[in-house]
Amino acid sequence: MAEAAGKAEYIVGVDLGGTKILSGVFKHSLECVGTSKLSTKSQRGVEAVIERVARCVREAVDESDLTLKQVAGVGIGAPGAVNFAEGRVIFAPNMEGWKDVSLKKDLEKQLGVPVFVENDCNIAALGVHAAELKGKPKSLIGIFVGTGIGGGIIINGDLYAGFNHTAGEIGHMVLDVNGPKCGCGNKGCFEALASRTAIFQQIKAGIKDGQKTILTDMLGDDLSDLRSGDLRKAIRRGDKFTDKIVEGAAEYIGIGVANLVNIFSPEVVVLGGGVIEALADEMMSVIVETAQDYAMPGTMKGVEIVASELGDSAGITGGAVLARRETK
Amino acid sequence: MAEAAGKAEYIVGVDLGGTKILSGVFKHSLECVGTSKLSTKSQRGVEAVIERVARCVREAVDESDLTLKQVAGVGIGAPGAVNFAEGRVIFAPNMEGWKDVSLKKDLEKQLGVPVFVENDCNIAALGVHAAELKGKPKSLIGIFVGTGIGGGIIINGDLYAGFNHTAGEIGHMVLDVNGPKCGCGNKGCFEALASRTAIFQQIKAGIKDGQKTILTDMLGDDLSDLRSGDLRKAIRRGDKFTDKIVEGAAEYIGIGVANLVNIFSPEVVVLGGGVIEALADEMMSVIVETAQDYAMPGTMKGVEIVASELGDSAGITGGAVLARRETK
Repeated sequence: MAEAAGKAEYIVGVDLGGTKILSGVFKHSLECVGTSKLSTKSQRGVEAVIERVARCVREAVDESDLTLKQVAGVGIGAPGAVNFAEGRVIFAPNMEGWKDVSLKKDLEKQLGVPVFVENDCNIAALGVHAAELKGKPKSLIGIFVGTGIGGGIIINGDLYAGFNHTAGEIGHMVLDVNGPKCGCGNKGCFEALASRTAIFQQIKAGIKDGQKTILTDMLGDDLSDLRSGDLRKAIRRGDKFTDKIVEGAAEYIGIGVANLVNIFSPEVVVLGGGVIEALADEMMSVIVETAQDYAMPGTMKGVEIVASELGDSAGITGGAVLARRETK
Repeated sequence: MAEAAGKAEYIVGVDLGGTKILSGVFKHSLECVGTSKLSTKSQRGVEAVIERVARCVREAVDESDLTLKQVAGVGIGAPGAVNFAEGRVIFAPNMEGWKDVSLKKDLEKQLGVPVFVENDCNIAALGVHAAELKGKPKSLIGIFVGTGIGGGIIINGDLYAGFNHTAGEIGHMVLDVNGPKCGCGNKGCFEALASRTAIFQQIKAGIKDGQKTILTDMLGDDLSDLRSGDLRKAIRRGDKFTDKIVEGAAEYIGIGVANLVNIFSPEVVVLGGGVIEALADEMMSVIVETAQDYAMPGTMKGVEIVASELGDSAGITGGAVLARRETK
């Protein structure tokens, strides 16, 4: 499989998350030829994490029977605010000590390959747009529901990042001004109502109030190690309590979708992230129905609302798309 | 003042509203050389209104000592959803019978001049961007607070209308999912919380509950003919009740601004419309402070939040900008 050495015709996408690092090596056609995965270990500090990112890239390249000389560029999605031009992570709330980190410069030093840094949700939207939807929609909003909720926006076929490169901070759109407290300090933010964190909190609060659920039979009373997939299993086993909470979250996601459709009039709305990946069958119809209820007449005509099928690969694919764009 | 006949070097902007029609004749430099105003009389039916629009244009042209032969094009903002390509008003909720009206075709027949139809808030944002801000900001959101709340979006220096040409429907962004009922059928929409209609309803409900206010001394117990300007007068005379309600609306506008800044990361947020025109001194500091409280760290850096000074002229100016763009 080894190609003629020295020809830099591959690109690498990296998804740097709070718990794990994923890398994928891609051809320019966006065919993935090898991947690698490492835990992030953010508690070891910024320098250690950057070394792990570099190692994860090297391992994916080795896995693909290639060398770094054959890589034209690396695109990386980081979970926070970034300065794209300088390749700096300004702030990543879920990673210890990540304030104003020169990720591009430090990684380039270690890898000897050009590196491009973007926000993780922007990257994921780019990946879904380019690979899953073949770059066809002129405008798209990606909504990624996991620990938090983030968004990525495509306008005129390209990533839209806005004046401060912060566009897509949809997780802190206020939907219920008197609603539950959010980690950001405000009340009733989208992610305080419909993220995995919000869903788990509601489940734990319900159990404390004496609600019965199969989840405690499955995982014990303290629900240690609860995951989104467990919610799906409980619902499929007829657990009404879990079903109701997940449906409630889906309704809020539907309202969020309607707000964004009213504001943006995108051609496609794509939902992704761990919660959607695990619960698409349970949530999507409620999301679509609620969005149609709340959107203004005429705004939904012909608009597709779909769950991404890229799953965990959205990030690495988007990273590759970014690297391809920047090294053209 | 008459120019050489036959040279079509002027453009006309029209603001078609539920109660009045404004027309303005402009040079290409966007200097206004004459205006005209008529009541809409929408109860007389669609055809009559279109004739009145044509009359209003003719009167503004005559007022400017010009003839229609010297007009290159007419740009018109209509209060509803439009099909820009076909120049049709799809639906205008505040105008009797306005469903699928071929405004462009009908007006062109009457005036013999090319006509271009846009949504009124899109047009107003375009006017503020081009004339008041000299076209400088790359991205801008205009928020117009009057009977309802509408928005207009500039991206990459031009109007962004989206897939269904409905972008900017910010008045129905849900901010308080359990809030007051909105005319659209949902609850807690932006305009159900902060429009003139919402403010007046809160004032009337308060009076019914026995609240004391200078407004009843000024206008009688039924507050017939209450206008935004009366609120300003009452507040300046020390009316705490009115002050509190207006401040509450300003807080909601601030939350709406923060949501839009989080989502869009615009360079400039412009506030306009009758409520802002009358109450800018009372509301703007609360709007800016609340927006800064609710926006995510980093999103507000260098973002200007300003009240438009174009007032009523935003619409006719934007109409002229549109006509200028389309007849280039």
